[in-house]
Parts: sequence; C-alpha cells; structure tokens
Amino acid sequence: MKLICKKSDLLAGVNIVSKAVPSKTTMSILECILIDASEGVIKLIANDMELGIETKVEGEIIVAGRVAIDAKIFSEIVRKLPDNDVMIEVDNDFTANITCENAKFNILGKSGEDFAYLPEIERNKSINLSQFALREVIRQTIFSIGDDRNNKILTGELFEVSRNNLKVVALDGHRIAMRNIELEDSYEDMSVIVPGKTLNEISKIVTGGTEDDMTIFFKDNHIMFEFDDTVVVSRLIEGEYYRVSQMVSKDYETKVTINKKEMLECLDRATLLIKEGNKRPIIITIGDSDMQFKMNSFIGTMDETIYIKKEGKDMMIGFDPKFLIDALKVIDDEEIDIYLVNPKAPCFIRDENESYIYLILPVNFTVANN
Amino acid sequence: MKLICKKSDLLAGVNIVSKAVPSKTTMSILECILIDASEGVIKLIANDMELGIETKVEGEIIVAGRVAIDAKIFSEIVRKLPDNDVMIEVDNDFTANITCENAKFNILGKSGEDFAYLPEIERNKSINLSQFALREVIRQTIFSIGDDRNNKILTGELFEVSRNNLKVVALDGHRIAMRNIELEDSYEDMSVIVPGKTLNEISKIVTGGTEDDMTIFFKDNHIMFEFDDTVVVSRLIEGEYYRVSQMVSKDYETKVTINKKEMLECLDRATLLIKEGNKRPIIITIGDSDMQFKMNSFIGTMDETIYIKKEGKDMMIGFDPKFLIDALKVIDDEEIDIYLVNPKAPCFIRDENESYIYLILPVNFTVANN
Repeated sequence: MKLICKKSDLLAGVNIVSKAVPSKTTMSILECILIDASEGVIKLIANDMELGIETKVEGEIIVAGRVAIDAKIFSEIVRKLPDNDVMIEVDNDFTANITCENAKFNILGKSGEDFAYLPEIERNKSINLSQFALREVIRQTIFSIGDDRNNKILTGELFEVSRNNLKVVALDGHRIAMRNIELEDSYEDMSVIVPGKTLNEISKIVTGGTEDDMTIFFKDNHIMFEFDDTVVVSRLIEGEYYRVSQMVSKDYETKVTINKKEMLECLDRATLLIKEGNKRPIIITIGDSDMQFKMNSFIGTMDETIYIKKEGKDMMIGFDPKFLIDALKVIDDEEIDIYLVNPKAPCFIRDENESYIYLILPVNFTVANN
Repeated sequence: MKLICKKSDLLAGVNIVSKAVPSKTTMSILECILIDASEGVIKLIANDMELGIETKVEGEIIVAGRVAIDAKIFSEIVRKLPDNDVMIEVDNDFTANITCENAKFNILGKSGEDFAYLPEIERNKSINLSQFALREVIRQTIFSIGDDRNNKILTGELFEVSRNNLKVVALDGHRIAMRNIELEDSYEDMSVIVPGKTLNEISKIVTGGTEDDMTIFFKDNHIMFEFDDTVVVSRLIEGEYYRVSQMVSKDYETKVTINKKEMLECLDRATLLIKEGNKRPIIITIGDSDMQFKMNSFIGTMDETIYIKKEGKDMMIGFDPKFLIDALKVIDDEEIDIYLVNPKAPCFIRDENESYIYLILPVNFTVANN
C-alpha cells in the first residue's frame, strides 16, 4: 500500500474513527485503525464490535492495499506531523513508513486480515434530519440515562418515529428526559433503543449545523448514521422500552413560571454545601409570588428567594438539586413552567407544545431538619 | 464584624491568598482564610507556615472585627455569588452570614485567635523589578528544580543579586537553567535560596505587566514580595547553593545554530515513541549543514533531518529529549546556538550576552541499538 494525503484531512478522519476504538480490550486488533486503500478510495475504519465507524479521506492511492495500525500511536503521530502532505507506505511485513517533510516514522502494523468490517445495513427504513438537531437532542437527554448495568435498557435512549415526529427519551428511575422533534417528512412508525455510549460518541463527531443533513437507517438489530463522508453503525439494545406516555400526565395543582437563569444559579450555589457522595435535598417553598430555596448541611445553610408567577396551591417540596440543574442546563427558554401535583408526586418542566418534558421525582425530607 | 465589598474585589483577593492554603494539613486553622477588618482596612490572610499571603480588599467596614473561614468553602461561595455587593456579618459565636442580593449563606467560622499572622520583615534590603520580569524568570527556570526531598537545596532556586544583575538558577543534577536580568538600579550583593513552591505560587498571582513594578525584600530566613495590595512572605531554604559558575564553561568544539521551532517540533514528535516511565535517548548526529535526530523504541523508529549552521567538529551525541524540550520551550529566540565539547560533556544552549544559559548533560547510548 502507498498513499498520499493532506495531514489535516488525515487527522480529521483519524479523530472521527478513534471514537470507536475501545479504551480497554483484550483483542489487540480492536485497538487498531484499519487504513483500507484496496478499492479505489482511502477509508479509515475502527470497530469495537458494538460501534463501528468508517470515514473517507481525500488523497491519492499509488499502490492499493490496506494495513491496521495501533490507533493511539497513529493518531498521536498524525497530530504532531507538520501541516503538509503525508505519505504512508506499507511494505510486505506490514511495517508502515509515515513520511511528512523531513520527518520519517516507522511503525509495525498488522495485515488487517482479522479486522472486523462494518456490517452491511439495508437502506430501506430511514429518516432525515439535520446534524445540529441530532447533536442537540442527544445533549438535551443523555444525562438522564441510567448507569445501571443490571437494567441494560436504562443505559440506552428510546428513538421513536411516528409520522413526522421523532421522540427521544432517557430515564433512570428518578427522572425522565423527553424531547420531540418535528421532521420534514413523514415516515412509518419505528422504535428502537440506542446505546448511550453510541450517542455520546456520535454527538462528538456530528459537527454540522442546521443546514447539514444526515440520514439515520433502522434495522432490527442495528442503527446506522450516515453524514458527510462518514458512516456510523451501532448495535441496538434489545427489549421493550418503558411506556413513558403513561407516566407523563397533564394534570397539576400548581403551576410556577420562573426565570431559568436565576433558578439555575441559585441551585448551583446551594450545591456548594453538599460534599461529594453526601445527598441533601433542596427544599422549595412555593408562595403566592415567590419561591424560597433552602439547603441545610453540616457545612452550613443557604436560602434564597426568587420571584415567580404562580397558579394554584402553595406547596413545600424537596428535590435532589442535581436533577433540577441537569434539566435546566439544557433548556434554552428564558422562562420555564414547572407543574406540580403534591410533595410526593413528580414535577414536570415542559413547554406548551411539549417539545421538551422533564419529569423529576421529589425526595422525602423532614421539615424539622430543614 | 460587618463589612460590605464588591463580589469581584472579594473574589480577586480570595484567589490570591488561596495560594497559601495547604491542600493537606492536620491543623484545621491553616485551612482557613482570615478576614481581618479590625484595623480600618479589610485584609485577607492565609498562611501555611512556609508561605504566607496577605492582600487588601476594597470595601466598607461597618463593624470592626475578624473571622477565620474554611478557605475552600468560602472561595466556592464567593465564586458563585451574583456579581454585586456582598455583605459579610459575623455574630458572637463566629457564624458568618454572607449575603448577596437574595442569596444568604450561613457558615460556621472560627475566632482566628490562633491564626498565624505573617512575620514582620525589616525593609532594609530590597530590589525592584517589573512583575512581568519576575513571572517570566520563574517560568524560564522552574522546570529545572529537583524534586529530591533528600537534597532540599535542589527544590529551590538561587536568587543572586550582584550590582544591577539578578541571576536566577535552578538545577537538578542533570541540567542547569540560568537566567540573568538587568535591574534598573544597583544593589549590594545578596544571595538566597527560594523554595520552588513559593515561586510557583507567586508566578500565578503576580499578573502585572512590564510597567507594573514590585519590590523583593531579603532577610536572613525570609523573602518578601510586595506588589499592588499584596504581600507574600516565604521562608528561605537554608544552606549554600552549588557553585554554578564553575560548571559553566565557554569552551566548545562544536557550535550549532538551529531554528528553535523546527527542533522543538522534531523532539516533540520523537517523544511520541516513548511510553511513560520508559526512557529513550534522542540520538543527534551533527554533520556539516544538517543535524539528524533519531529515536528508536519498541513502538517504532523516527528520524528527521534539520538544516543547521555549524562551526567545528562533527559529532554524535544522545540526550533525554525531555530536557531539551523543557529548555527550548522557554527560549523566545527564533534561532538558538548550541555549544558542544564531546559526547560525554554537557551541552550549553545560550545567547551571546548570556541572558540565558541552559546546561544539559548527555546520556550514554550504544550505537548498535540506535
């Protein structure tokens, strides 16, 4: 194999496929990036068997062939090369010569014979959306997935297509994050559970804006994301997702409208009094025109009052402040509506057309301590 | 005690004195910042018994007094307060009420009775220089101090004043970093060893430019830095420093002039082939008009050739690339001169008027392996 490409193009490709290189594995071939120049285009591929990424790199193939090179070493070398043309030449024993200006590296590669290529995915069920929309919807929900290895379904997100609506849901037993995105076209109904790890990685490499489209393909066991010169294939999580619609109610006794930034900064201050691993609730007292936030720990106490608009009953309710903070951080609205029923029932933060719904369970607290 | 000051002023002061709060200590009073408003000005003080910092904060004292508050909690709270006036009020049992807009914190403080104030330093021996000059000279030498606890002298830097010259030296047994700064005035000869930790911390808080002056006071056991509204006092390291002038020779057999950036980037690439904890030399072969750099490790090999100007003999010599990198990183010149004697003798990187001298010992290597 012998090829020439620009350092910047090569680096961009390496950065993309590196997301599918496992940090720990016993199979050393999985730690490699495959450079495949055997079929007229230069492709970089990495695959940890759950998640596989393939991307094309512009360049000139002088001798066709392929080689697998340790991903960490290869990406470090490419990053530090001068910003110029890079030549990669592989001899018969798979030693890779990487040359750029006066710098020459010599790295032992592998034949790539036992490298796992990406599975073939039929292209019959798919949706289109912008790269920006996918990246945003992941950011706005991913914090609510569970890290519970015993319940694998919680470690993924529901992607549910119904006509021209994409619903994305994450939940962990204490809270639900739900977003609805309107699609340009209508599609047949589809529903899959995508691993959180896949979504985390893809949100880092889908860097396009609202004008940059991408396609998501659905199959029984796989999902495929296609954008620019890149294809990402991931296994799906098997099983049936929770019936979230049954948990989301529109009834409420109290509706609070509050400035999001003020509430977020107040909660942020309150958590200063919580040392790591030590859970303390924020106690919220809702009055006619203000809401009082109280935190009490062995470090000290904090209280703060914020002006609100209120409909319905007064209420005193406690929350894990982290859950409120996580939700508020990803809401772009200046003012938010919080719907409450009673101190034992979940609260809902949602906008009018339900483009987002965040459900958070309250925590018990004894007034005497707070 | 009761006082009012701006959040931004308070935060700036807290950030400065926090540098003297020890990360680990068995004396809980050392973990505190003392707020002293007993004598008409608001002072913040921290002191870990080696290094003490005192700084003034603008503000209004309503009731005189003082209180010691846990530095970590206090600085976190101040950082997260709204950007407005902050009121700190301490009651008789030393509970501190910190109020800003609608946010109120209540933190248990201490009387500060057993707090260690900064030692009094006579102001008879001193030098003036710019804040920029001190910060730069520390950055340009501090990497060469030893971490050898058995030889405490190596953990500090020599500050030697001779007429209008300040010489700063750090060495660790493998290398020497030396800088000479011309002072505006002439002073009597002084020579002290300043702890590296003190210099690291002070270089973070001396943020002024070339026009912002500061004064350094010398005493037998202490050094004091005075700038803006801040005073930093540190103990000195006792003992006699190495006679560095005897180690620095002007004789050479080979003089190489090389582009600093090219050499630095080449060394940077070479170190990619060294895994942590695994030392490998960079082998340098000096020819008539070029210098070849070779690295060889179990990961692979790298070689690169850089054009140079040369006087004197050809040579082959090995170095720990890290030592060369450290020195090159802090030299601002575009081209540098390297002076060599033979493959067993130290090399010198220095400019013509010796504003900097970096001495680096070579390492042994067997050509067969490289």
